[in-house]
Amino acid sequence: MSPTAAAPRLVALDWGTTSLRAYLLGDGGIVLERRAEPLGILNVPERDFRAVFDRIVAEWRGSDPMLPSIASGMIGSAQGWIEAPYASLPADLGSVARSLAIVPTVGLRIVPGLAQRGRAPDVMRGEETQLFGAMAQSATLSSGGVAVLPGTHAKWARIAGGRVEGFTTYMTGELFAVLAHHSILGRLAGATGSDAAPGEAFARGVRHARDADGGLSSLIFSARSTVLVGELRAEDSLEYLSGVLIGDEVRAGLASGDRPRVLIGEPALCARYATALGEFGVVDVDSLGDTAAAGLWQIALHAFPELQRADGSSRRSVSA
Amino acid sequence: MSPTAAAPRLVALDWGTTSLRAYLLGDGGIVLERRAEPLGILNVPERDFRAVFDRIVAEWRGSDPMLPSIASGMIGSAQGWIEAPYASLPADLGSVARSLAIVPTVGLRIVPGLAQRGRAPDVMRGEETQLFGAMAQSATLSSGGVAVLPGTHAKWARIAGGRVEGFTTYMTGELFAVLAHHSILGRLAGATGSDAAPGEAFARGVRHARDADGGLSSLIFSARSTVLVGELRAEDSLEYLSGVLIGDEVRAGLASGDRPRVLIGEPALCARYATALGEFGVVDVDSLGDTAAAGLWQIALHAFPELQRADGSSRRSVSA
Repeated sequence: MSPTAAAPRLVALDWGTTSLRAYLLGDGGIVLERRAEPLGILNVPERDFRAVFDRIVAEWRGSDPMLPSIASGMIGSAQGWIEAPYASLPADLGSVARSLAIVPTVGLRIVPGLAQRGRAPDVMRGEETQLFGAMAQSATLSSGGVAVLPGTHAKWARIAGGRVEGFTTYMTGELFAVLAHHSILGRLAGATGSDAAPGEAFARGVRHARDADGGLSSLIFSARSTVLVGELRAEDSLEYLSGVLIGDEVRAGLASGDRPRVLIGEPALCARYATALGEFGVVDVDSLGDTAAAGLWQIALHAFPELQRADGSSRRSVSA
Repeated sequence: MSPTAAAPRLVALDWGTTSLRAYLLGDGGIVLERRAEPLGILNVPERDFRAVFDRIVAEWRGSDPMLPSIASGMIGSAQGWIEAPYASLPADLGSVARSLAIVPTVGLRIVPGLAQRGRAPDVMRGEETQLFGAMAQSATLSSGGVAVLPGTHAKWARIAGGRVEGFTTYMTGELFAVLAHHSILGRLAGATGSDAAPGEAFARGVRHARDADGGLSSLIFSARSTVLVGELRAEDSLEYLSGVLIGDEVRAGLASGDRPRVLIGEPALCARYATALGEFGVVDVDSLGDTAAAGLWQIALHAFPELQRADGSSRRSVSA
């Protein structure tokens, strides 16, 4: 008897700082069910990760107490459930799968983050899993290229031959948040979020970052001074600031020789990056959406031999 | 009878966002008395600027109700007592003195800020007064050069022939404050101030900003990642961040062709900038301290003809 697509094979958790996304995956990594809760590691009452885990997976594991489980993200940090020490570069599916941490009481595997040492120390935790998911979806990326993961701490990752070879973090999302909520720039605009589609003020900010010299701490002040001299509306200043910040990230990334091939993550944010890249003449960039579940499946294939019988994906050979 | 040095001639107020510094000046602009209160314009109860003014100057004006008074800083902004519209560039003592606003009820003159229009819109309010004070103290600067005013919104001002010709703002101080108090970088270090003398971690941050590529939003993340890979102590990370931010400002300023000749402002902060400039090989920079009172005196000399009899300064001809 061959397994049916509806048979549950893996519990996969993308467990970050502010949110928890849980997936029940079937043969070939297909998503059978999904849940999202605001139970990031900083929001778990009394740090009782076990209680959250049990509640989330109880129903899914009900019929199969041996159902394997795997998690990525900040749940493996020093502030998480069990620390999964960073794996080294270059990193491929095999080396990461060999470095999984395990929570003994429940058998949960936790994916390690990646650390880059040397002249440009850098770290990621969670994005490595999204990268392996993206490689499974894009043979072009897997063979070689740069993937950009926008977010609080945006990553530009260099991929070659199915391996993560190096990466650079830009604190763009967190900079926008602290400036909008805690600086004079937000007070001017009456701080709001920036979830809307990027407008002309956004593109104008991108072009300012592209064309002006003076450094980022000067560029961001232009979100205030351009209003005060009457050349930008106060209510547009956060859109403009978003453009300046993402524009400077793109300027710096391109200047360092990275040319993005794919965008990974939340579609509205990826759309902002695609717009910004377009202002620099980089137009043929694919947006892959959220690839965490796909990445957790790929890593689990290496960690749980019993899953390989359940992998119907023709792409496995690409990323294995 | 010649006036004596002890005769009060002018009440001079440096009235900013968070603090008020008041000076009673005598002949030649000599400081007879000074007061400092945390009554910046955002902290004045019920925005009753008149009450604060009356209380501060009552004693000083007691013997001479006609004693002239002048103020600079955010007191002349839209959030201040009376708005003093920005003056244009280039700006000299004469053009600024002709643009003073006046608070009718008490006769207080308010110095306008400066606005730079065109390709690089920028504004200052308060620093123009410090610049005129610095020119009165440094004939070299007055003839031509770049002055740097570190602070919340640091300014690099280009001076020639006694005029402010252009300037660039770097939001370095505010960036440090919001990152230390509201971002993951501060949480890592256990946010504290950064008032101590700059240490080796500061210089290391400066050198990283000098040597690394990648843009500021990438550089600042290194204050976290370098700790996480074990190459920087968590308690040193804010010193390092301070170095990265000031170092990137210096890098950008020098790259745009500005070569600082003097530093103006709070001595401990100027010392940080001098250290940072030294890492870039710029070593012969004078630190002038706080020049606001000297600048208010110079502007008042143009605004109040009766003061010119009281000006014993031999430098007046340089800056007039």
